[in-house]
Amino acid sequence: MSQDRLIYLPLGGAGEIGMNCYVYGYGKPGEERLIAVDLGVAFPDMDSTPGVDLILPDITWLKQNRNRIEAVFVTHAHEDHIGAVGHTFEHLGAKVYARAFTANLARQKLAEYGIGEKAVQTCSKWPATVQAGPFTVGFLPISHSIPESSALVIDTPAGRIIHSGDFKLDTTPLVGEPWDPALWAEVAKPGVKALICDSTNVFSPHPGRSEASVGPNVEKLVAGAKNMVVATTFASNVARVRTLAEAGDRAGRSICLMGRAMRRMIEAAVATGVLTGFPKVIAPEDASMVPRDSLMLIVTGSQGERRAASAQLARGKYNGIELKEGDMFLFSSKTIPGNERDVIRIMNQLSEKGVDVVDESNGLYHVSGHANRPDLETVQDIVQPQVVIPMHGEHRHLREHVKLAQARGRTGILAVNGTMIDLSGNAPTVAEFIETGRTYLDGTVQIGALDGVVRDRIRMALNGHVTVTVILDEDDDPLGDPWCDVMGLPETGRSHAPLVDVLEEDLGQFLGRAGNKTLIDDDKLEDGLRKVVRHVCLNEIGKKPEVTVVISRLS
Amino acid sequence: MSQDRLIYLPLGGAGEIGMNCYVYGYGKPGEERLIAVDLGVAFPDMDSTPGVDLILPDITWLKQNRNRIEAVFVTHAHEDHIGAVGHTFEHLGAKVYARAFTANLARQKLAEYGIGEKAVQTCSKWPATVQAGPFTVGFLPISHSIPESSALVIDTPAGRIIHSGDFKLDTTPLVGEPWDPALWAEVAKPGVKALICDSTNVFSPHPGRSEASVGPNVEKLVAGAKNMVVATTFASNVARVRTLAEAGDRAGRSICLMGRAMRRMIEAAVATGVLTGFPKVIAPEDASMVPRDSLMLIVTGSQGERRAASAQLARGKYNGIELKEGDMFLFSSKTIPGNERDVIRIMNQLSEKGVDVVDESNGLYHVSGHANRPDLETVQDIVQPQVVIPMHGEHRHLREHVKLAQARGRTGILAVNGTMIDLSGNAPTVAEFIETGRTYLDGTVQIGALDGVVRDRIRMALNGHVTVTVILDEDDDPLGDPWCDVMGLPETGRSHAPLVDVLEEDLGQFLGRAGNKTLIDDDKLEDGLRKVVRHVCLNEIGKKPEVTVVISRLS
Repeated sequence: MSQDRLIYLPLGGAGEIGMNCYVYGYGKPGEERLIAVDLGVAFPDMDSTPGVDLILPDITWLKQNRNRIEAVFVTHAHEDHIGAVGHTFEHLGAKVYARAFTANLARQKLAEYGIGEKAVQTCSKWPATVQAGPFTVGFLPISHSIPESSALVIDTPAGRIIHSGDFKLDTTPLVGEPWDPALWAEVAKPGVKALICDSTNVFSPHPGRSEASVGPNVEKLVAGAKNMVVATTFASNVARVRTLAEAGDRAGRSICLMGRAMRRMIEAAVATGVLTGFPKVIAPEDASMVPRDSLMLIVTGSQGERRAASAQLARGKYNGIELKEGDMFLFSSKTIPGNERDVIRIMNQLSEKGVDVVDESNGLYHVSGHANRPDLETVQDIVQPQVVIPMHGEHRHLREHVKLAQARGRTGILAVNGTMIDLSGNAPTVAEFIETGRTYLDGTVQIGALDGVVRDRIRMALNGHVTVTVILDEDDDPLGDPWCDVMGLPETGRSHAPLVDVLEEDLGQFLGRAGNKTLIDDDKLEDGLRKVVRHVCLNEIGKKPEVTVVISRLS
Repeated sequence: MSQDRLIYLPLGGAGEIGMNCYVYGYGKPGEERLIAVDLGVAFPDMDSTPGVDLILPDITWLKQNRNRIEAVFVTHAHEDHIGAVGHTFEHLGAKVYARAFTANLARQKLAEYGIGEKAVQTCSKWPATVQAGPFTVGFLPISHSIPESSALVIDTPAGRIIHSGDFKLDTTPLVGEPWDPALWAEVAKPGVKALICDSTNVFSPHPGRSEASVGPNVEKLVAGAKNMVVATTFASNVARVRTLAEAGDRAGRSICLMGRAMRRMIEAAVATGVLTGFPKVIAPEDASMVPRDSLMLIVTGSQGERRAASAQLARGKYNGIELKEGDMFLFSSKTIPGNERDVIRIMNQLSEKGVDVVDESNGLYHVSGHANRPDLETVQDIVQPQVVIPMHGEHRHLREHVKLAQARGRTGILAVNGTMIDLSGNAPTVAEFIETGRTYLDGTVQIGALDGVVRDRIRMALNGHVTVTVILDEDDDPLGDPWCDVMGLPETGRSHAPLVDVLEEDLGQFLGRAGNKTLIDDDKLEDGLRKVVRHVCLNEIGKKPEVTVVISRLS
């Protein structure tokens, strides 16, 4: 009879930034009772995922072991940790545990799927705990760029695990609990088997800066502004939104929040008591009545999202407001890699309107929400874990984080998505590799990343598309000429004749030459027609398009 | 009778970074004799230009005034200044003037179009000049990140213009001529009507650093490397390639250049005498015979280009070389905004192989080739132009550069692509707006950016594509059932039946219900069928695809 074991299995977030999803299990091999930590999303891009709405972790393994899942714990309410809660609930059927602010937002996500409030259990912070099968789990407060971010203290029969969640070491975070090294030392005292730790900023060499350092700079900037002021940041960065609002308020400006996410976040923060003393705000529909030099908008869209308030203000009117020469627009945010083009587009649109754009490049108006390299060292020194397992990072981050642990004489192990680690013994071992990938939310359907659907779309985008229609009569003879429809290709090429005409001419000749063996065989005929199309297009326009061949037989 | 005037007209590069193309004219309004300065390209991206090979400036206006063009001058051989020379030559028919290294590369580009060497005239540097109609043009040496970069001294009957080209103020550029303030002061002495000036780095607050500052850092890094070393940078940055090669050479390593562009650039630099004393290199096919710890590769692909050497080495074997645990890969380059995802992909692939990646984030291994803000001030102070016209920058750069000039008491004017400026009088005025845009090289065809071709491709990528085929008999009655082909859409949706089946079922019902008025009218029928497809798809999968309807009538 085999012994109980403690396993760790990342399904998302280990080998990428985004769509965090981690599994812990305890029990006999293959029969472990499971908890999931975080169910996040990643965001699609035109390069690799055109037309996709959201990227979800591939939870096939969890679905297959659905009856073993005790609970889902959510560390904090960032989309890359909570975003998939609604989309995956029916597949897992496990209750979601979170602190009040996070739980409020989780309930909103479940409500979109018609799932009731009771599916989410609001938890108190450590030392309160939740029992979930063999696990006892507590929410240990830690500072981050969203309220009530928590590490998880996961007690198991094989020892204590600390799962960091996202965090920074901020003793003055303005909103939410400060970093409390004494509390962490106390939690670590009985000994920590493994620290599963955020890796995002492992390449940042200097200690992280406090949220409190931003306020005086913003205040000075807004105080000196002559006309309208607009500021954008992540809506979930409630502390920053308050900092921005207070700067406006002190400068005697009316504050207006624009963008659905911005209002929803602040409402959730107020409703759950994490935010108090927020300056009075005016409704978006009233903003245009306020004199321009007495108004400050705080808006969504810091990453250049095309439908968000920032982009709309950059393009034209939004809620009756139009930006003008001499207005100021502050990006109190960092551009996430991959979003540069979208953000720069907005900056240039604002420039065309004569708006002065201020960004964080001088280090004054933004601080990161993640622990930098020296902060990671500090946490290791306090927690003194037997093993460090980096999570939430691309491969390069995880690898560097392992090296960092090893340089301090600790055991570090690199586990990317799908790597099941056995933590039972004194040294961690790889127990198994689970097949894993990504799931796309495409419209209303969830599809696998390797289904070929998105690959076909990318091919059409790169190569264009040609439809060939051929009708064959009862004797398998072509009835009339083949017909071509073209989408996404130039109208004329080398011969200066319309591409469609050249195609139909050559396809007609091919049909005329084709023998009975070809004409009676759909596959052969389709293959031949496709080759003609590709050959003609390569010759005429230098491209090989995607081809759909439709053969209709009247027989 | 109207008087002669001096005009400036940017057609590319003013309002964007890339595809530089500027026109100067002198003569009676509408009859000015013209010169073009630079004919560059910009690079496509999946977001806005999927499948496009290159982006060229829209030279419609130049084509229309072809008989007035005296010459094309190319300031330096970066693709965003020289890349369109071959693709546009037949439309302009004007001789290309450039210094030796640039001319060598221009001839290669023209040769691809079968155009002979004589189309390019090799010019000596200032004080030598070229007469081109009313213009006398000299190539004034200036430091940049490519050999023989030059400003143009353009003498006209209305005064002297300095067109900066791309530049930095580097007194120790290693390859090419150093910044020579005394020479520039001498050229400026007779008075300069207008300085048309590079704006790329106007937001960089500190004086630019010299190319010479990179060498010692790279040397130290390479000297400390234990296994194979690979370094990448722009192939055209000949000084940097030499710095990298010398660092390897001094560490006793064999040097191997990989990637076509890398070898071509160094060959051109050697052939034209701008590069001497380059360390001995080994052929790519011999590299795998050299012990790993005695080898240094210098490779193309610093921007993550998928087919370049860097990407191939990151994916697997290239020229028999495979990177391994403990090798080092140096990005001696900055990632151009928009290329982050591609570069990061390579970094992670290298991390998976255990390769240590070093980049320029610590400021040690790369310096910019463009003049920073204080450098732009220095140039203004030396040239003392009556007018500053910023070029080569996005709108935000041009605007900031105008402000910079104005802050120093100068006249600055913002002229984006298509803005014709009259420089004849004491103050510049906008003479006219020329309709302009972008031209795409798509395969072998040049198409307009607004032709709709690329728009259709983007739509297919976002929405997928459905082909509907319907056959109608001689009496306009449907013959058999309608037929659907789907590309880039999920196979099943809400009803869990195959999407194609649901579509064909509903299309069949529509045809059954359709009256004769609809059946005899192609437009009505097509419209109806398209609506059914979109309705079904929205309901089943939450997407509205692009639809091609093919109606075949046997009549």
